[in-house]
Amino acid sequence: MKTSPLDRCRQAFADVMTVPAPADISATTATMLEFVFADVWQRPGLTRRERRFVTLPCVAAADAEGPLRDHVYAALNSGDLSIVEMQEAVLHFAVYGGWPKASRFNMVVDEQWARIHDERGLPVPAAEPLLPLTTASDPEERLTAGERAFREVNCLPFAPTRDNPFHGAGILNFVFGEMWLRPGLGMKERRLITVACVAFQDAPYPILSHVYAALKSREVSFDEMDELALHFAAHYGWPKGANLAQVISEQKVRVSAEWAAESS
Amino acid sequence: MKTSPLDRCRQAFADVMTVPAPADISATTATMLEFVFADVWQRPGLTRRERRFVTLPCVAAADAEGPLRDHVYAALNSGDLSIVEMQEAVLHFAVYGGWPKASRFNMVVDEQWARIHDERGLPVPAAEPLLPLTTASDPEERLTAGERAFREVNCLPFAPTRDNPFHGAGILNFVFGEMWLRPGLGMKERRLITVACVAFQDAPYPILSHVYAALKSREVSFDEMDELALHFAAHYGWPKGANLAQVISEQKVRVSAEWAAESS
Amino acid sequence: MKTSPLDRCRQAFADVMTVPAPADISATTATMLEFVFADVWQRPGLTRRERRFVTLPCVAAADAEGPLRDHVYAALNSGDLSIVEMQEAVLHFAVYGGWPKASRFNMVVDEQWARIHDERGLPVPAAEPLLPLTTASDPEERLTAGERAFREVNCLPFAPTRDNPFHGAGILNFVFGEMWLRPGLGMKERRLITVACVAFQDAPYPILSHVYAALKSREVSFDEMDELALHFAAHYGWPKGANLAQVISEQKVRVSAEWAAESS
Repeated sequence: MKTSPLDRCRQAFADVMTVPAPADISATTATMLEFVFADVWQRPGLTRRERRFVTLPCVAAADAEGPLRDHVYAALNSGDLSIVEMQEAVLHFAVYGGWPKASRFNMVVDEQWARIHDERGLPVPAAEPLLPLTTASDPEERLTAGERAFREVNCLPFAPTRDNPFHGAGILNFVFGEMWLRPGLGMKERRLITVACVAFQDAPYPILSHVYAALKSREVSFDEMDELALHFAAHYGWPKGANLAQVISEQKVRVSAEWAAESS
Repeated sequence: MKTSPLDRCRQAFADVMTVPAPADISATTATMLEFVFADVWQRPGLTRRERRFVTLPCVAAADAEGPLRDHVYAALNSGDLSIVEMQEAVLHFAVYGGWPKASRFNMVVDEQWARIHDERGLPVPAAEPLLPLTTASDPEERLTAGERAFREVNCLPFAPTRDNPFHGAGILNFVFGEMWLRPGLGMKERRLITVACVAFQDAPYPILSHVYAALKSREVSFDEMDELALHFAAHYGWPKGANLAQVISEQKVRVSAEWAAESS
Repeated sequence: MKTSPLDRCRQAFADVMTVPAPADISATTATMLEFVFADVWQRPGLTRRERRFVTLPCVAAADAEGPLRDHVYAALNSGDLSIVEMQEAVLHFAVYGGWPKASRFNMVVDEQWARIHDERGLPVPAAEPLLPLTTASDPEERLTAGERAFREVNCLPFAPTRDNPFHGAGILNFVFGEMWLRPGLGMKERRLITVACVAFQDAPYPILSHVYAALKSREVSFDEMDELALHFAAHYGWPKGANLAQVISEQKVRVSAEWAAESS
């Protein structure tokens, strides 16, 4: 028996969102649901779990209450993300997407985590303690570790000057001296979140540098990055998606040329 | 009898919003209301109906709940937009502004449509069925139609490669192979929405290409485009408005030169 | 001799931007320039210097290259902000607006600071050294200081749990344990930047909490806050401005009631 397009859409929606599709879908909503859930989410190239690390920053940035709540629920309820990964994703998003939007994201995570346990008749487990931190406390040591992490994460031979508040107190001391070094989230996952965030923030140099580093580090393959651009465009809109796709095509050329030079 | 500036502002507000202006307006709010409603909305160059296709993307992007609700209500309640046009505008916005914000926009449309019928003591009419779609189902046919629509909408002699997820599965298969080809919304209206969306998303190439195509197609005149920039700036802020105005002035020169070359 | 509206607009533009207005202004641009520069910037309620702390986050958030460059130049060239204040504003913006946009803002500050010195035939002075930091290094001490700063800045009797990465590693350890405690920028200035940032990010709770705290601390008066809303709306758009104005009116009632209860 043939599956109708609408049935295929309903199955895809339920697979991603872990709840049934709405019963009463308007024509235009169906068009969009079909494209987003039955076409984009079902594609190979990125797993469902990996697509969540692109989707979550998009819905947190858009701060549309309903989709944010639904995607946080689905990511936790499916078991695709652990609560530790989800909370670490919120902190990572805070840095790249801004604290106020992250504040709401964090509240939604707490709510949906409670909801899932409530639905299952289970108590919410106690949180992991913050201390001890795995990073150094001494300012000089933190900056040195931050400079090393900056070079490694960005695949660059240099780190920025310390003597600028944004770079010293912010980037080296906190973003790379602590945040990127925290356990609980893999490097590939951090890169998916970061690329989604720089793509919606769309300041030119950060997009370029994080797309470059994700490819150069081989933590995101060329095909995965193309897939990320499509997934991002479907969730945050074509104009910023087109910009990201353009940067990706340029950085592939750059990285390929560097690899060719390194192997010769 | 002379109309006071505040009365003029109240009349303009009521004309656009289809409800009376708030009774208790602070001095700073009055300054803004006067500019937005009594100055900008009353200008010739774009009709009130046309201004709605610029305003709706701005309020949906800003996702300020109150203004979104009020402008959706006003657009439908005034009769300036039919429900079919409004729902099609949501889908078009979803593509250019991102699915999460569109999801909220869509919910607000349903709510306000119900509210209007409730106020009038009428039942909400049944929705238009999605199927049958007017676009082809065969993937090859869809891509071919998408390539043709891409060239026509963008006023370009070429279409992007199919063999890239963003361009093939996204742009050709869905955005131009289906969305732009749907009936229910005119081309001029789609262009007004698109330019507003690329202006707030502000990735450089999409602004340039959609401003160019709107002018080149003669579906938006030079004067209408200037007016669009002002209306956008009033609703989405002066900095992005200034950027749009800059692109418009450059694209006018380009389009004029092309027309001169074509007619010589 | 009477000053024409366009002359008034040109004078206002030159006063704010420290350079002459463009010679060739279209009618729609003139309408906007007149409102923004001749009306809004000239109002009492906030000084020109104070308005810069609202404008800079707006143009950095919008990442419209031209306006960002022009406003950074004007703020430094007028002497309204010192370079230390400007750089501290970038770091503060990074936290509330997101690191990628701040990265561009920081680059523009370096460029314009060099341009100003170049125009004056002066060498760019050496940067202030980052170390020693004025905040504690020990994690426990930092968290304790962060909890205290959180309560004081937010005018709240409690601080969030440490055992959540967003709150512990982010908010307490860095945002309130270090960033808000840095010298180089006054509390009023930090509040102006923060309110502008939460207004464009538009997650509901942060807008509410930072508007409340700015008023409750008496570091921003009721009238100044109204003026901030107008200035913000002119630069970041009416819909988010309307949302901010709504929150302000509610928080004034709340703060007034609290003050009445405290004094009785």
